Amino acid sequence: MVFVQIREAKEGDCGNILRMIRELAEFEKLSDQVKIGEEDLRADGFGENPFYHCLVAESLPGPGESQEPCVVGYGLYYFIYSTWKGRNVYLEDIYVKPEYQGQGIGSKIIKKVAEVAVDKGCSQFRLSVLDWNKRAMDLYKALGAQDLTEAEGWHSFRFEGEVMRKLAGK
Amino acid sequence: MVFVQIREAKEGDCGNILRMIRELAEFEKLSDQVKIGEEDLRADGFGENPFYHCLVAESLPGPGESQEPCVVGYGLYYFIYSTWKGRNVYLEDIYVKPEYQGQGIGSKIIKKVAEVAVDKGCSQFRLSVLDWNKRAMDLYKALGAQDLTEAEGWHSFRFEGEVMRKLAGK
Repeated sequence: MVFVQIREAKEGDCGNILRMIRELAEFEKLSDQVKIGEEDLRADGFGENPFYHCLVAESLPGPGESQEPCVVGYGLYYFIYSTWKGRNVYLEDIYVKPEYQGQGIGSKIIKKVAEVAVDKGCSQFRLSVLDWNKRAMDLYKALGAQDLTEAEGWHSFRFEGEVMRKLAGK
Repeated sequence: MVFVQIREAKEGDCGNILRMIRELAEFEKLSDQVKIGEEDLRADGFGENPFYHCLVAESLPGPGESQEPCVVGYGLYYFIYSTWKGRNVYLEDIYVKPEYQGQGIGSKIIKKVAEVAVDKGCSQFRLSVLDWNKRAMDLYKALGAQDLTEAEGWHSFRFEGEVMRKLAGK
């Protein structure tokens, strides 16, 4: 069992975060969709009006051990707006490296996101999960989340690329 | 056929927008969930760093007609962040009053959202729809949207209220 702390990401974490974004997309079998680079992450998350916020899970050396702290997971979120409830948090990505899974690190990240949400006066936070990712679904449900697609029938739609530009008349 | 323009909402539209938010929630059979008030909408959308943006569809009098312009629909959106594609738009609500449906006003709102997204350098915009709302689903598909829940299996999850506060240890 390693000791892991959850802390806010710093700009210098962007390289590690990008590697984990790619690992997560690969796990989701959608890695061809990652178009973002480290420079984008630095510019978008660490300017005056950041477009996102990020937590990292950092594994710390035990007593007498000499290795450097090591980033082993992340949770990337931003604020959204519900016309029912006002300002809320959306957890876009949550990921723990395979060799560190099963140690409660994902739950720690989720608890920290809940803390941020409560501190910012939000009444909820949302996230999306692929239906074949049973392990993640079971974790979220065990922690008390509701599957809104199952319970209410919500489907996610996306307009993208050429289709969107045509709609825009551009 | 009425003439309808899509324009950015002004603070004075908040009363109309709130009435339509309630109508939409009623249509979605989820009206008990609306906790927001007009003051929240004013404060959250029209301060220095607005939490959302809103378009309204306004019906204009025909030649020789004397009635006032009348707000008959809205589209409320905000910016989100994809770890694959960077900054994107999320259309939280889109609504056209029943007596004005079937005249292409919804499509006009969607096209305007696409225009905003392209102008802001976004590569996509997303929205959610209830699976029994076939009319909306058919419209979005006809305009070129992809149903990601169907195609890739994405489910929406939500942590809320007491569950979230307990997670946060508050």
